[in-house]
Amino acid sequence: MQDPIFLAHRGGKLRTAATVPLDSREDLSIAYTPGVARVCEAIADDAALARDYTWRSNLVAVVTDGTAVLGLGDIGPAASLPVMEGKAALFRQFAGVDAVPICLDTTDPDAIVAAVTAIAPSFGGINLEDIAAPRCFEVESRLKAALDIPVFHDDQHGTAVVVLAALRGALRLQGRETGDVTAAVVGAGAAGVAITEILRFAGVGDIIVCDSTGIIHPGRERLSPVKEELAKATNRFGRTGGVAEALDGTDVLIGVSGGLVPESALAGMADDAIVFALANPRPEVDPAVAAKHAAIVATGRSDFPNQINNVLAFPGIFRGALDADAKDITEDMKLAAAEAIADCVGDDLAADHIVPSALDPRVAPAVAAAVKAAA
Amino acid sequence: MQDPIFLAHRGGKLRTAATVPLDSREDLSIAYTPGVARVCEAIADDAALARDYTWRSNLVAVVTDGTAVLGLGDIGPAASLPVMEGKAALFRQFAGVDAVPICLDTTDPDAIVAAVTAIAPSFGGINLEDIAAPRCFEVESRLKAALDIPVFHDDQHGTAVVVLAALRGALRLQGRETGDVTAAVVGAGAAGVAITEILRFAGVGDIIVCDSTGIIHPGRERLSPVKEELAKATNRFGRTGGVAEALDGTDVLIGVSGGLVPESALAGMADDAIVFALANPRPEVDPAVAAKHAAIVATGRSDFPNQINNVLAFPGIFRGALDADAKDITEDMKLAAAEAIADCVGDDLAADHIVPSALDPRVAPAVAAAVKAAA
Repeated sequence: MQDPIFLAHRGGKLRTAATVPLDSREDLSIAYTPGVARVCEAIADDAALARDYTWRSNLVAVVTDGTAVLGLGDIGPAASLPVMEGKAALFRQFAGVDAVPICLDTTDPDAIVAAVTAIAPSFGGINLEDIAAPRCFEVESRLKAALDIPVFHDDQHGTAVVVLAALRGALRLQGRETGDVTAAVVGAGAAGVAITEILRFAGVGDIIVCDSTGIIHPGRERLSPVKEELAKATNRFGRTGGVAEALDGTDVLIGVSGGLVPESALAGMADDAIVFALANPRPEVDPAVAAKHAAIVATGRSDFPNQINNVLAFPGIFRGALDADAKDITEDMKLAAAEAIADCVGDDLAADHIVPSALDPRVAPAVAAAVKAAA
Repeated sequence: MQDPIFLAHRGGKLRTAATVPLDSREDLSIAYTPGVARVCEAIADDAALARDYTWRSNLVAVVTDGTAVLGLGDIGPAASLPVMEGKAALFRQFAGVDAVPICLDTTDPDAIVAAVTAIAPSFGGINLEDIAAPRCFEVESRLKAALDIPVFHDDQHGTAVVVLAALRGALRLQGRETGDVTAAVVGAGAAGVAITEILRFAGVGDIIVCDSTGIIHPGRERLSPVKEELAKATNRFGRTGGVAEALDGTDVLIGVSGGLVPESALAGMADDAIVFALANPRPEVDPAVAAKHAAIVATGRSDFPNQINNVLAFPGIFRGALDADAKDITEDMKLAAAEAIADCVGDDLAADHIVPSALDPRVAPAVAAAVKAAA
């Protein structure tokens, strides 16, 4: 095909390279047999040396089961490869982290956990990607418990970190405190659940979560375990109803649903409202319409201002975690990452510039340093 | 550590690189979202396109359970990483094949098969490495049945291919036919079993296999299933006894045992004997001693002539298999690889030069072309 997109992807988007010379007999005897045996024996005697003398200290597996790829849904492991390769390439480009796609031919949580646990000795971190909710919650929590390397579902936590960074920027611009605002999170999938969690941890005043059935509250029947937790931990004043009721007098809308939010609901938001309509490619509300009712509008798209893009977070987060030899990526590390992203905006802070550009080369090093310090 | 070996291995021996530009917003929209979605959709519609538009067509997993690493034995997955990284670097260096180490935190055949099957969609081939016998036979045969990409246990088949290439060179030098010679294979582990198989396929007159108990023959009790097969398929004249009886009047000794072969046994070999003493780092018999009783001597070591080294085989074999989009690596492909290696010696054929140098840059392309043609 002569299509420029397909031409760019031809043969894939990654390659490996050796970092040692392999040109002479002497080279081979150092990098391979017999020299390598001494390095193996040293690691067999002291497992901690694997960090210094193998690739795993810089290597992340980008793991998916292919069930929630972009907005395309369950397209399977082979079709998800181009996305995972792109992600791996971004790891290398923005943070010097090596990453390889691991696309799994199973959607069974037990099998996913077993496979990732089995391959873990080769890797310094596991980036879970595009695994559908609610399976993603179980898979992540079981892997975190099983492994002593960072496990991070980027659709949850990467998104949550960048959303918090953008919210910090918006509130700073408006001179408001995080604890004084109420936020509605529309969508209770992977991203919505993690955003709610980080907003709580960051001290947002109140949070109302809506799924496709409406506001999540303790009186609702047949809630999943994850949503039962949400019902207990959010919605301080026991609101019920739909999106309109969730937005009534609310300061912040964070849309991660893929569904639409009607203009009439937006109209009921508080003054100086903040709207993040993050569905891709079609935001929950047209940014021009949102601007009629909100002071600050952000989307997930590169062709509008204020792009909330995970690439601001994941490369630096893993860089910092690997550099710190962290066993886990904690809430404190995520919070530090969000602050570092927000701080990169600096004096350029404006209603159409609450987060740095996805291409800003200062961001990943700043995030890495903050995450390492918090680890 | 200031030790030059450890310095060379510091930080590992591999890195990744992106093969597409990622510097501008436009670059990102092609390599990543939204452009990548079209490539994903195309593959979801036609799985065969994964070959053209993803990395898997050039990517091999170097998979081990860490149980038979070099001569070090069962040192576990983390300590095996330096070897697997070296192997991956050699794939890139000699054949432009990308490879990543996958060191498994399990030695259970069911779990190994499940994990490798799960991760297979990311890879164009599976190189099994340093998995102990007899588990390696079961793991390989189950994976070959389960997957539609090449699965190749290099300790078996890579070794067998290079041994056959060296034998072809030796017999060509002596003007003898393959079918006219009798060979003793001392050692019935991964390498010994595969060498026996390829020698049979190549038409060697008779083969006598010895393990640590002695010659394998149908009258022996408590033979494993693999050795029962060997007993049926070898030892045409029903020899019994030990290494001395196996070598009595025999033309070719192939040692892959790690044990020692006494000089007295060598002394009983036929005239113009050929001795391959392949144990590393200590050959089954000192090459100088072997030379007293044999016309041609080869070892696995780089500091003696005639080094029988797998690096002559595996890079070109996978290059050819990937280029042919082969579903498997067949006996014919292995035979073609051995012939191509032997042919690279050409007019330089001599008693101390029956195989090409491990660094000869002509070998991998020649092997790849022969394997592709045979696929």
